[in-house]
Parts: sequence; C-alpha cells; structure tokens
Amino acid sequence: MRMVDLIEKKRNGEALTTSEIEFFIKGYTKGEIPDYQASSLAMAIFFQDMNDEERAALTMAMVQSGDVINLSRIEGIKVDKHSTGGVGDTTTLVLAPLVASVGVPVAKMSGRGLGHTGGTIDKLESVSGFHVEIEEDQFIKLVNEDKLAVIGQTGNLTPADKKLYSLRDVTGTVNSIPLIASSIMSKKIAAGADAIVLDVKTGNGAFMKTIEEAEALAHAMVRIGNNVGRKTMAIISDMSQPLGYAIGNALEVKEAIETLQGRGPEDLTELVLTLGAQMVVFGGKAESIDEAKQILQKAIDDGSALDRFKVFLENQGGDGSVVEDTSKLPQAQYQIELPAQTSGIVTEMIANEIGVASMMLGAGRQTKDDEIDLSVGLILHKKVGDKVQQGESLLTIHSNSQDIEQVKEKLYDNITISESGQTLPLIHKVITE
Amino acid sequence: MRMVDLIEKKRNGEALTTSEIEFFIKGYTKGEIPDYQASSLAMAIFFQDMNDEERAALTMAMVQSGDVINLSRIEGIKVDKHSTGGVGDTTTLVLAPLVASVGVPVAKMSGRGLGHTGGTIDKLESVSGFHVEIEEDQFIKLVNEDKLAVIGQTGNLTPADKKLYSLRDVTGTVNSIPLIASSIMSKKIAAGADAIVLDVKTGNGAFMKTIEEAEALAHAMVRIGNNVGRKTMAIISDMSQPLGYAIGNALEVKEAIETLQGRGPEDLTELVLTLGAQMVVFGGKAESIDEAKQILQKAIDDGSALDRFKVFLENQGGDGSVVEDTSKLPQAQYQIELPAQTSGIVTEMIANEIGVASMMLGAGRQTKDDEIDLSVGLILHKKVGDKVQQGESLLTIHSNSQDIEQVKEKLYDNITISESGQTLPLIHKVITE
Repeated sequence: MRMVDLIEKKRNGEALTTSEIEFFIKGYTKGEIPDYQASSLAMAIFFQDMNDEERAALTMAMVQSGDVINLSRIEGIKVDKHSTGGVGDTTTLVLAPLVASVGVPVAKMSGRGLGHTGGTIDKLESVSGFHVEIEEDQFIKLVNEDKLAVIGQTGNLTPADKKLYSLRDVTGTVNSIPLIASSIMSKKIAAGADAIVLDVKTGNGAFMKTIEEAEALAHAMVRIGNNVGRKTMAIISDMSQPLGYAIGNALEVKEAIETLQGRGPEDLTELVLTLGAQMVVFGGKAESIDEAKQILQKAIDDGSALDRFKVFLENQGGDGSVVEDTSKLPQAQYQIELPAQTSGIVTEMIANEIGVASMMLGAGRQTKDDEIDLSVGLILHKKVGDKVQQGESLLTIHSNSQDIEQVKEKLYDNITISESGQTLPLIHKVITE
Repeated sequence: MRMVDLIEKKRNGEALTTSEIEFFIKGYTKGEIPDYQASSLAMAIFFQDMNDEERAALTMAMVQSGDVINLSRIEGIKVDKHSTGGVGDTTTLVLAPLVASVGVPVAKMSGRGLGHTGGTIDKLESVSGFHVEIEEDQFIKLVNEDKLAVIGQTGNLTPADKKLYSLRDVTGTVNSIPLIASSIMSKKIAAGADAIVLDVKTGNGAFMKTIEEAEALAHAMVRIGNNVGRKTMAIISDMSQPLGYAIGNALEVKEAIETLQGRGPEDLTELVLTLGAQMVVFGGKAESIDEAKQILQKAIDDGSALDRFKVFLENQGGDGSVVEDTSKLPQAQYQIELPAQTSGIVTEMIANEIGVASMMLGAGRQTKDDEIDLSVGLILHKKVGDKVQQGESLLTIHSNSQDIEQVKEKLYDNITISESGQTLPLIHKVITE
C-alpha cells in the first residue's frame, strides 16, 4: 500500500477502505508517513468528505493509536458528556454531581487547556484542597462508591489525533466535518465512554458559527458514535451570548452550587436538565426523557444533588463546606460595576469577545504556561432580551487590578443596547441520528 | 503574512495576489515554509484552480527562485521549443538544424533525464566525438555564427519548481493544470526563451491521455507565455502510437538525418514543418505560416538544413561525416524481425508500452544511474492504418542480446491487428491563445 495512492483515491472522490485508513493512521503515528502526505490527504478530505464508514474507521483507528482507558471495573453504563466549548460554560460542574446523585456513574477524565477561563480541573481547584492527583484504583473505587470522581489525563490517549490536529491547525484543514467529528469522538471513546451526550455550541462564541454547521457536526458525531456501538445524541445550543451569568473559575463554581440548589440561571438550568435527562436515559436510570427530568428535578429539590457535590469535593481533598458558604471561594479584590450608557433592550452580547475580556482579567490561559487567577471574572446582570436603564449595571467586573479601562472598553464594544429586541432561544435542536 | 492564511484563502476559492504567491515561493525555496504547508496548498490548488494572473505570477516567482540564463548576447529572437514528451520523439534533432539553417537562432540547453530513450544530449552523443561540455562564451559565439549550439544544463534553474515537483509527485498533486503549466513555462523562461513553441502530446503514450486535457494544458501554457511577454503557441499532436519509425538513440539520429534529407517519415516531417514554421514566424524570418513552410521546405530540398546539422556536430567535436554515412553510428549486434501473427490492418500500437519494450533493450533509463545503450531500439515498418500480411515484419528489433523473448511478448501484447481500421490524425489542434 502506498500513501500517494490513498491520497489520489480520496482526491478523486472515492471512499477509502478501513484497512487503508488504518494504514494511514498507523504509519502517521509511527512517523513512517510524513506530514506533507498527511496534510495533502487532509485537504483532499476537506474537499471530498468521508462517508459514514470512513468516519467510523478513522475514529477507531485514532482510538487504537494509543492507550484506551478501561472502565470495566466501574459498574453501570458510563455516560460521558462533551461540549464543543464556549464562554461561561458551567455545565459540567453542575451536570456531573446531578446525574451521579441519581445513580449514573461519572468517571471524568479532564484537562486544563487554553481558553477564556480554565478547564474543569482549574475551576474545581477554586475549592481549597481539591486535587485530581489520585491513583487509578482510588478513582475506580470512588466512582463505584459515590458515582463521581475526576482524574487528570493519564496515559497516551489518541496520539494520532494530537499529531493530526497540530498539523491541521497550520495547513488550513481544521474546518472539515469528518475530521472534527472523528477527532472529538476518538477522544471520548479512548477515555472509556459507553455512551456519549454532546453539546454542540453555535453562534459567535462557538467554533460553529451557524446552526447549519453545528447541525452537520452533530449529525456526524452522533452517526459515528452509533456506528461504533456507543449510544450517542447531541443537542445544539446557543453560544452567541455567554451561558449563565458567571464567567471565571471560582465564580462559575459558585454559580454551579446555586444551580444545584435550584436557584441558578434559567438557561444554565434548562441546558443541564436537557443534557442530564439524556444521560440518565442512556445510563438506564429512566425510561423516558420526561421521567428522567422529573428524577433530576427531585434530586435538586431534595438537596441530594448538592450533597453529592459536597461528598465528591471532600473525597478528593476539597473543603466541602464551600457548598454551604460560597464566600470561602477565592474572592477578587475589586468588584466594579459596568453601567449601561443608554437605556433600552440588550440585543447583543458577543460571547467570544466577552470571554476575551475575562481572559484579560486573568481568568484564562493564552499559552499553556500562563498562570490563572481563579478569583477574577465577570458576573452578568443582563442578558440578551433584558431591559436596562441608563446607569444601571450591566455586569460586575471581579478584578485584582483597578487598571481595567481596556477591559471595560472591550465589554462596551461588544454589548449592544437598542430600542427593541428579544430573548435568544437556548436549545435549537436535539439530534439523535 | 502567514502561510496558513494563504492556504485557507485558496481553499475557499479566492485568488492569491502576486505578492502572496511570491511569499510562498520564496519561503518554500529557502525552506522557511515547510513541505506540509506546500502540499496542502498544492491540493487546494488542485481543487480550486488558479486564474490567469495567479498562473503568471506563480511561473515568474519560480523563474526568479534561481538563476536566469541571459541570452541577450545572442542576436535575434530566441525561440525555444518544448515537447511534453513521448515515444520516439525525434523532433528536436530535426527541428533545431532546420530552423537554424533559415536564420532562427537555436541556443538549446538540454538534459539527459529518464525515459524510454535518452534525452537530446544522449541521442547526439551517438555521433562519435560530439559533446556539450563547452564554455558559455563559446556557446554564445557558436549560436551567433552558426545559429545552433547545445549545452548541458548549467546554473541553478527554477529550484522552486524542482522542490515543488518532487513534493507533488508524492502528495497526489501532479495532475493539476496550473501547476503543470507553470512548471513547464518557468523552466523555458529561466532558460532564456523570448518565444516558445509547444508540442503538447496526447494519447496513451502521453501524460495527457485525452485531447480535452491536452487542450486545457496547451491553453494554460500559451496564456502564461503571452501574459509574461513571451510569444507562445502550442500544437496538440498524437502520441497514441510512436512518432516516426525509429525508437532508440542512434536510430533516431539516423532518422533525423533522413528527415533533413527530405526522406523521413511522413508524420515526423509534418510535425517538424508545422512547429518549425511557427518558430520561423516568431523568429521574424517569415510573415506567415505558409511562407515559413516554403522557406523550410527549400532548406530541406537544397541541402542547407542537413549541412547545418553537419556544421553543428563538427562545432561540438562530432564526426560530421555521419550525415553522409549513417553506418558510422553505433550499430546493435542483432537485427531481429517481429513477424505479424495474423493478416489485417494495424489498429493499435500502444506508444507507452512500445517505449517500455525499447527501454527493456537498454535504450532508456529507469533510474538516473542506469547506463544507456545508444545502439539499440526499434524500427517500425508498420503504423496504425497500415495493411499487413501474416509473417510480414511489423518492426525490426535492434538488440545486443538474443534473449529478447520478453521484449517480443511486450510488443505483441501492444500491437493490435484487426480486420478494418484507419490511420490516426497527427495534429489535432493549433492553440494560439
């Protein structure tokens, strides 16, 4: 088999066989196939696409390129959730204890990563003492006993995907549905998921700017999952404005606690219940989505969801009393209001740019060596569709510096107030095939 | 300027600017832009094509990537001819002395290369003593005095093209009209041509298998030439069967001498007069193609074309008496006939495979270290459309070995005799814009 023949085959619009895709991924991982052939194939895939069989084969070849986490010692169906990323996305912090509290095991492997705020681990480290340096045996034991544990990324998962993604990033081949879908799905499958619930974001704060693009990606991932024996569904949710009110690490933990207490932002709560209900059904703990939602609502109402969060934090060295007293979370030195410059209706809050403002305060990383300030961030008081009076606060800036003129400017530039406007729908679609 | 942005721009179907193309070619030649970005761009060009401005800019950027031969010390308009390659293509050996004999300067830089037979220099070395190791000053002097000289490739011409071509060869991006056209044209322009006459071959012995593909390439090259100030035209000629009767180095020199004497094969003579007439018009030695053809026919009839060949050979150390006695050329030890196995009409002689048979005898190089046997090759007696009787010789095999069963088999496999058939047209089209 010669790589150049595979490239020409794909270039001419033919489908590659599973063994051809395996030949490529194995050879590329080992360094036997050079970058210049991989990038040329990626560009051919950009133009000629891949059919369902090819996408499934590519995903599984990438899974097999490295370690695969074995979660078989955990009882029950392991359901993982993945979000394509956005601004102020507190979902995982709420969802994990919530579904765990109703008996769905959550064995979460998480990372730090770059972005407007830290990753899930960074956020959880806002809780004094909390850490993810636990042994695999301890991790399995915690999930079996209390249904929830988080561990840092271990092992060499999907090295083919890592190598290919770095290459795509510099060769104009990131924006290809089959390549994005197989990249995401391979990571979830290698991490041991039996079933997968996907939250595909759309809008200016997301990678997929339009609903059509998000839908295409969602369908692609759901089909891959189902074709390789993992029950998979996706929702398409809005990320044209930030989700919830909080953007920042400790601020999002506080918001998660409030949401687990039943007094969180409406949009975040709706998203968590929608995703969570699907996880409960996949996990075999309810027959229908409606039934699952009722079970979850009950876990919030009776305090068992919040309690599960507390147990989880304490299991991993954290100060669980934070769920009763969120003032124990890191606090920024200054709370500075951002007054509206005119009266009207908020019609636009550009999620991506508001995320950048939060990163300017120190809440996120631009390069992997940046230190995160866990205390800083933004608390929105208004969202798209809300009325506002001139001088009324749009949001509070939590900062450890008073020199925030540039942050204010960035925020004003990306919040629009007009005479008329309406709220944005949060969940656009549910994709099950 | 970032290469990844250029790749995405082309991928999205936009045209690159001249300065973007120069940025790519300069950076790639210097090694600052890696192969994996160049191959990805090449694949994007395969799918999105390039417009006339981009093609001209790419050609000139490749010309400027290395040395450019300065032929300004040669008087007159330097017209170069290029063929896209085929089997038994004796054209240059006839054309060069023919047009030189009517006053068009031919300053030919030539190579050896791989293929079914040797390159022009290999063929000329069949003449005892002939060599191309002459100084540039001597080369210029010879062309000014006698209108014809051949020199081996000197200098570092179009290094960008060499590097890009090697990359395209292994990344499935050879078969792209803008990339092929700019590659060929950049080499001709760097070699100092003022005007260019192109012979684009089509058929199974050529790179362009169909007339449509050949036409697209011809138009592309003619437009590039005219857009960068070089008068350019192309003809599209048949290469589904070998050109002329001779395939092999010394055998083709003999055929060239016969053609210069006015007794060469009809097809080769027609091609030479068609290309030569255009060169004479471009060279300013005739007003019209018809007038140019008459001038050339006269040069054949009165012996001045043959005489010019003799002078040229002697100028470069060769034994000029070979033009009067072709038995002085290297002779193979055995002449073996290939008798027709049935009677009928020859309907197919697959050029490419007949070329391979010639290479099996030792007439060509498969790798650049192979030694060529100048004496061996094939002399066809029948061509497509000719009647043949069972047992009559189709061709004579000139070999230095009697162990030629595989060669015979290859030849029989690729010559078809049927009950009815017709001759093939030689010149399909003349392309001037």
